[in-house]
Amino acid sequence: MKLPQHVELYEVGPREGFQSEASKIPTEDKISFINSLSQTGLKNIEVTSFVSPKWVPQMADAEMVLAHIDRVPGVAYRAAYLNLKGLERALSNNVTLDGSLVLSASNAFSKRNMNKSTSEMLETLPEWIEAYKNAGIEVKQMGFMASFGCNFEGYIYLDHLLDIMGKVISLAESYGERIQKVKLADTMGWANPEQIKTTVRAIQDKWPELQIHLHLHDTRGLGLANVYAALQEGLWEFDTAVAGLGGCPFAAVKGAPGNISTEDVAFLCAEMGIETGLNLKALVECSKMAERIVGRELPGHLSRGGVLPEIRPKSWMQVQGS
Amino acid sequence: MKLPQHVELYEVGPREGFQSEASKIPTEDKISFINSLSQTGLKNIEVTSFVSPKWVPQMADAEMVLAHIDRVPGVAYRAAYLNLKGLERALSNNVTLDGSLVLSASNAFSKRNMNKSTSEMLETLPEWIEAYKNAGIEVKQMGFMASFGCNFEGYIYLDHLLDIMGKVISLAESYGERIQKVKLADTMGWANPEQIKTTVRAIQDKWPELQIHLHLHDTRGLGLANVYAALQEGLWEFDTAVAGLGGCPFAAVKGAPGNISTEDVAFLCAEMGIETGLNLKALVECSKMAERIVGRELPGHLSRGGVLPEIRPKSWMQVQGS
Repeated sequence: MKLPQHVELYEVGPREGFQSEASKIPTEDKISFINSLSQTGLKNIEVTSFVSPKWVPQMADAEMVLAHIDRVPGVAYRAAYLNLKGLERALSNNVTLDGSLVLSASNAFSKRNMNKSTSEMLETLPEWIEAYKNAGIEVKQMGFMASFGCNFEGYIYLDHLLDIMGKVISLAESYGERIQKVKLADTMGWANPEQIKTTVRAIQDKWPELQIHLHLHDTRGLGLANVYAALQEGLWEFDTAVAGLGGCPFAAVKGAPGNISTEDVAFLCAEMGIETGLNLKALVECSKMAERIVGRELPGHLSRGGVLPEIRPKSWMQVQGS
Repeated sequence: MKLPQHVELYEVGPREGFQSEASKIPTEDKISFINSLSQTGLKNIEVTSFVSPKWVPQMADAEMVLAHIDRVPGVAYRAAYLNLKGLERALSNNVTLDGSLVLSASNAFSKRNMNKSTSEMLETLPEWIEAYKNAGIEVKQMGFMASFGCNFEGYIYLDHLLDIMGKVISLAESYGERIQKVKLADTMGWANPEQIKTTVRAIQDKWPELQIHLHLHDTRGLGLANVYAALQEGLWEFDTAVAGLGGCPFAAVKGAPGNISTEDVAFLCAEMGIETGLNLKALVECSKMAERIVGRELPGHLSRGGVLPEIRPKSWMQVQGS
């Protein structure tokens, strides 16, 4: 047992959540939502995506959103981007960048999503490294989509994942850059808790200094069990979305749950005595706001189940320990 | 790590799920649903409740349901009851009985639910033991509602839980009966994974022979994480409800998730290589049937996320191990 003392949640609701909504969300709603999120204790909020407005009209207001949110000191406002054009837009819009190199662990998904195989995508990374260097940004992170399984490819083998991780680390090294963090995404909700543990241990064995950040989906209901497994291995950074915003376009049924819910994960941590710096009641208010914005019930549990700290001041673990 | 090789799920959807539905469910629907459940591999199905039709009109057809279901050999059909009158009805309707002694671990909940404190309820147990003995049923089980926390009482301390467990065990012993199993219910969704582990370890330390069965709710989203924690402690019996049928009347909002979902737990087990004897596709069909019967979307994930074994034949764990 080596649960961390502190967990950091990276909010992705305004980006990944809203991106998957079919009907246009008013820019003002996005701005109010982000402003409310900024008051919950969250220190990292992914607010938008610099993608082609032709392909993703929902994100056409990226610059507008970033220009009008109230930036709270200490909160990093982040954005997603998929190509160098997107990176350029990110660079001119005051977002926090990690110098991240991103591939899909699934070859089939890479072809489908980026029109290039994983190896072909690997060959494009030098351009990314150059672009980051030119912008004065350290290349210190790598990310892998579909790290745990893929609806189009099937199993993702651990050896394969370790292999491409090693390739990216070496490539960065050859440019004098050191990868310090890996983001593993369970894009289609394939991971199970034992798989999380096996994967984390293998990575920690091979690269003990590399920090592992998880981006988990709750598509098949195992999201929080996967978080718990990761916490047991000492991981302390997760992407989450308030209310469980964000569907899964690859699920069997439209409207299947997507990202794990920020308030549910924060509650899990709080109950086990792990500090997150988050205000659960404020998160629940944001969760209700998200439901109003998208106009339907979202998968997060806590806003319906009720926040326990309203009933009692301490977690069970704290009381038993005292 | 001591995950069990086999897990047994006790289906409670037709009882606990339907019981919490406001509008009357046609008896034929209940019967078809139970008949479908009997074809999934489930070996234990709680089909109804012998309670006063005045208080719970939904369960007024208990005898009718039991008389008309197609009983599959090898499947135990069970029922709930709260008083000796209920036990009498159960005895004359061919249901499997465990000779169970049930209390609430929360005094406040006991008073609210049974109009008697936990101690007063303890004093009624000799009548139950007599009644079981008269019916030729061994008294071998005890159950505790609100074992992990209570909206009306707050914290349930582990020492208190162990204390009342000891009292029931001693009482049964004084009648020459040996309690072999304890059912711990997280009636209002207060448990967290570390609490599950601490509780299970304390019980296993004190009574190594006592089997622990969990009845978990997903009210605040920690249901599957709690199952995973329990599996890590070697537990292998859980109450679950197809589709996550069964709301929580004590939650902040009507319609909050209740019981953990049978198909989601079965999927968790399958993915980790734990055998359940359950057919996931058949469970998903039952889940969809449950949604048709109650006329709304239910919380279970798998029917929306999609059953992975449709895409690939083995779990990730099996493939990695081979």
